[in-house]
Amino acid sequence: MEAKPIDLKRCAIHTRTNKPWSLAECCAAYAKRGVGGVSVWDDAYERIGSEEAKRIIDDHGLGVPALVRGGFFTSLTEQERDSSLDHNRKLLDDAAVIGADMLVLVVGATPGMSLVEARKLVTDGIEKLLPHTEQTGVKLAIEPLHPMYADNKSCINRVAEARAVCERLDHDLLGVALDVYHIWWDPDLKVEIETLGIAGRTFGFHVCDWKLDTNHLLTDRGLMGDGVIDVRGIRGLVEASGFSGWTEVEIFSERYWAMDQNEYLDLIVERLKSST
Amino acid sequence: MEAKPIDLKRCAIHTRTNKPWSLAECCAAYAKRGVGGVSVWDDAYERIGSEEAKRIIDDHGLGVPALVRGGFFTSLTEQERDSSLDHNRKLLDDAAVIGADMLVLVVGATPGMSLVEARKLVTDGIEKLLPHTEQTGVKLAIEPLHPMYADNKSCINRVAEARAVCERLDHDLLGVALDVYHIWWDPDLKVEIETLGIAGRTFGFHVCDWKLDTNHLLTDRGLMGDGVIDVRGIRGLVEASGFSGWTEVEIFSERYWAMDQNEYLDLIVERLKSST
Repeated sequence: MEAKPIDLKRCAIHTRTNKPWSLAECCAAYAKRGVGGVSVWDDAYERIGSEEAKRIIDDHGLGVPALVRGGFFTSLTEQERDSSLDHNRKLLDDAAVIGADMLVLVVGATPGMSLVEARKLVTDGIEKLLPHTEQTGVKLAIEPLHPMYADNKSCINRVAEARAVCERLDHDLLGVALDVYHIWWDPDLKVEIETLGIAGRTFGFHVCDWKLDTNHLLTDRGLMGDGVIDVRGIRGLVEASGFSGWTEVEIFSERYWAMDQNEYLDLIVERLKSST
Repeated sequence: MEAKPIDLKRCAIHTRTNKPWSLAECCAAYAKRGVGGVSVWDDAYERIGSEEAKRIIDDHGLGVPALVRGGFFTSLTEQERDSSLDHNRKLLDDAAVIGADMLVLVVGATPGMSLVEARKLVTDGIEKLLPHTEQTGVKLAIEPLHPMYADNKSCINRVAEARAVCERLDHDLLGVALDVYHIWWDPDLKVEIETLGIAGRTFGFHVCDWKLDTNHLLTDRGLMGDGVIDVRGIRGLVEASGFSGWTEVEIFSERYWAMDQNEYLDLIVERLKSST
C-alpha cells in the first residue's frame, strides 16, 4: 500500500514531543516550519488555562487534532472512578475551548484486576462520558497501548479490543487513535486497520519509531527512521482504509529532549518527509 | 480454573536463573531442595561438554525438561541461515546427550524484514530441522516472545502464530513452550491455551512475573508474586488443557543475580509454593 507524499499542513506535533518548550514556543516553531497542527498535552496549558492556550494556537493558525490525555477508568473504588470521570469531563470542556477534535484515552489497568474485568470498567466509564461528549462535540479516541503497558496503564493492547468497545457502545463520537509504536507488531494489523476504516472509527494516527536498543519502557522512543517500524507502510494502510485525518508526531525521548529543540524539530520535519 | 498444589518434583529451574552458579552448583542446590529438574542453557556446559553435563545432572537424579536455546532462523542470507541450522542440529545432538526432552526455539526477527516474511523463514527453518529432530528424538518447542521483542528476537509474539507454524508442519515432535512473561497480556490466552492443549502441542510451561516498575527489557523479570501476572491462574488453564509436564522457573534479573544465590533459591522454592 503506497502512502501519498506527506503533507506538512496535515501533520501535527504533540507538545510532549518538545517537552522542554512552552506551548507558545511549540506553536511558533511548528508554524514557522509549515507544520499545520499541534496536539496539546494537559500540562501544556495547566498554568495559562485553556482560553489563553486557544489564543496562542489561533495566533499561529494551527489546527488541533487532539487533547492528550484522558481515560484511566479502572480504579478499584466507585468513588475513584467517579472522580476520574469528572476529570475526563473537565478535559472534554478544555478540548472544546481549545478546539481539539478529540480527547485521546489511555484507558487504564489495575494490578490485581484481570484485564477482562478492567475492559468492562473501561466500557462502563466511556459510556458514562458519552453525554458530555455529545454536549461538547469533542470526539473520544481509545488508544490501544503496547502489551508492555498492560500492567498499570492500559488493558486495551490491540486494535481488536479498542474496536470491540467501539462496537459495543456504537456512537459516532467514539473511535480509535492508532499509534505505530503500540500496534506495529500486531499480526492482525492489516485486517484491523481495514475493519476500523470501514467502520469509520480511525480518529487519530500517531507516528514515531521503535529503536533496536530501547533502554527504557516509557521514554526511549525513536524518531521515524530510527528503528524497525515500517511507518510509511502503516500510513499507507491507514490512508487506504479511508482515513484522511492528521499524522501526529508523538515521541517521548530523554535523548531528544536533551537536544537543542530547534535542531530536533528540523530533524522531525526531515523525517516526516523521508521516513513517514 | 483451580491449579493443583505445586509438586516440586515436577518443577525445574533454568540454569540462567542462577546465572552466577556453575551447572554443578545449580544441580546440587536444586536437588538438595527437592526440585526435580534443571533446564540447561548452552553456556552452562560450554566448557565442560555435554557428556560431563549429563554425568553431573545424573549424579543428582535430576530430570531435564529443556535445552535452551536454539532458533534464530531469520538471517538475511541463505548462508547465514544454513549456518544457524547447523548450530541448531548441534544443539539437538547436545540435548540428546544431556537427556533434555526439548530444545526451546527463540525464532528470530530481522530489522528491515517484515514479520510476515520472517515467519515464513521460521517455518522453512524448522521444517529443515525436522529430520534431525527425528534422528535425535528431541522435541522442538517454539517459544512465543512478548511483542517488545519483535524488533530483533522473535517474529512470533502470540501463541496463535506459534500454533499456526505447528499446524502447518504437523509433526509430533513440534510444539510450543508457554512462558507467562510473554503471553500473560494476550486477550486470546484462554482459548489459545485450550486449543493448544487439544492438539497436544503444549510442550513447556515457564514461570516468572512481570514487575510494575520494570526497568530493563531483558534483565528485570520478577519472581512469581513480585508482579501482576496471575501465574497460578495460567497454570490452572494450562493443566486443565491437558498439560502434565514440568513447571520451569526462568528468570533473568540483575537484581536477583546480585543476591546470595542460596537465599534466592530458597525464595524461589517458597514462591513456587505460595505464588505459582
